[in-house]
Amino acid sequence: MLSKKVLKDIQSLGLKKYRDETGLFVAEGPKVVEELLQVVPQLVQGVYAVEEWAAGRKGVEVISDVELERISTLKTPNKVLAVLRQTESREPQTGGFTLYLDTIQDPGNFGTIIRIADWFDVKDVVCSPGCADRFNPKVVQATMASIARVNVFYDREENWLQRQSVPVYAATLKGKNLHSFPKTETGILVIGNESKGIRKEFLARATEPVTIPKRGEAESLNAAVATGILLSHLLP
Amino acid sequence: MLSKKVLKDIQSLGLKKYRDETGLFVAEGPKVVEELLQVVPQLVQGVYAVEEWAAGRKGVEVISDVELERISTLKTPNKVLAVLRQTESREPQTGGFTLYLDTIQDPGNFGTIIRIADWFDVKDVVCSPGCADRFNPKVVQATMASIARVNVFYDREENWLQRQSVPVYAATLKGKNLHSFPKTETGILVIGNESKGIRKEFLARATEPVTIPKRGEAESLNAAVATGILLSHLLP
Repeated sequence: MLSKKVLKDIQSLGLKKYRDETGLFVAEGPKVVEELLQVVPQLVQGVYAVEEWAAGRKGVEVISDVELERISTLKTPNKVLAVLRQTESREPQTGGFTLYLDTIQDPGNFGTIIRIADWFDVKDVVCSPGCADRFNPKVVQATMASIARVNVFYDREENWLQRQSVPVYAATLKGKNLHSFPKTETGILVIGNESKGIRKEFLARATEPVTIPKRGEAESLNAAVATGILLSHLLP
Repeated sequence: MLSKKVLKDIQSLGLKKYRDETGLFVAEGPKVVEELLQVVPQLVQGVYAVEEWAAGRKGVEVISDVELERISTLKTPNKVLAVLRQTESREPQTGGFTLYLDTIQDPGNFGTIIRIADWFDVKDVVCSPGCADRFNPKVVQATMASIARVNVFYDREENWLQRQSVPVYAATLKGKNLHSFPKTETGILVIGNESKGIRKEFLARATEPVTIPKRGEAESLNAAVATGILLSHLLP
């Protein structure tokens, strides 16, 4: 059984303020937790699971369904919750290929983009301050274990992009046809907020405005989907 | 003010059973509703909105925030809700390019895929019975107005795929490199459930198993993201 203190400590990690203070975060569900245990076991501070998941595993605190429900941030809690130490975040040097996210607020989209970066070996994701928190439980869930592999850096002063000298690709509805770009290993791809697009000051920095050609009628593509399509064409 | 009956009728549309019985569905939020009013005004049965959104518009029933909250299926209700007549669904003939979804249960992913189909001018999406309901409010929200443009057909007997004779592409982790396929206007692309993949019997029908080459470490890509990448490479 969980003590009142542990219960309250875990619950508080649903809030950014407490995640920042403690340097901890929460991951939920068998898929993410199992992958994180494999990839970054050294970061795992505690694993809390119902009997069914815990059976045969070491170092797991068995809890009841009711307890899981109380510590979970999910609408439908999913067998296991882990508390982990946050990975560090460092300002990236360009040279390879980097993503820059301008105000991607939806945690699902934000997490999915981190996972896409990991799939395409984009090691750094730079975010404007208006982006979701990288350790928001919904972000963590969407990233799978990619949260532990991709460096997510917050550009608090919003001056990182200005300081780079590599080509800056910007996903926009009024750019050059994606299929006309040669593949490249060097650059920055800027992705904007789905309804508002990329802010003017960032768009002004783009040397390569790029558009995914539309064959049909939809007004736009989801930001994560667009990121996947752009990276799959631009990277070798 | 909404009558008790109207309130109850709208609320009931959150359930598939009542949507099927009435042939109606609900769309929520300014973006989707505004687009649907433009694209399929003839299907709109009623529009219910708070003063702020309703101002200056005709045929809108002004409701209070509390009423909106009561009829909304969203956690954060968003200014306007519309009730629409369902579009018809017809069994597609192949000849062009068609998507086949095997057990895509997540409404957000399912809706995003319908929107991707619309972007790439894929006019038909065939779904196994295990897929989400096309008029689930979360699906509608993710499709934007694409729900009114794309024909979504449920393959209830699960025998549609067997009856087709065009090339069948299947998204799998063990297929041929996507970049080795020539572009094509004819075929079916099968997308599977994100954790379980495509079921064996469907995979057996695939003449062209196809894989998005992985450069990094992520275990998989989100199903909607994979659909977008595959279509953007396979279609001219």
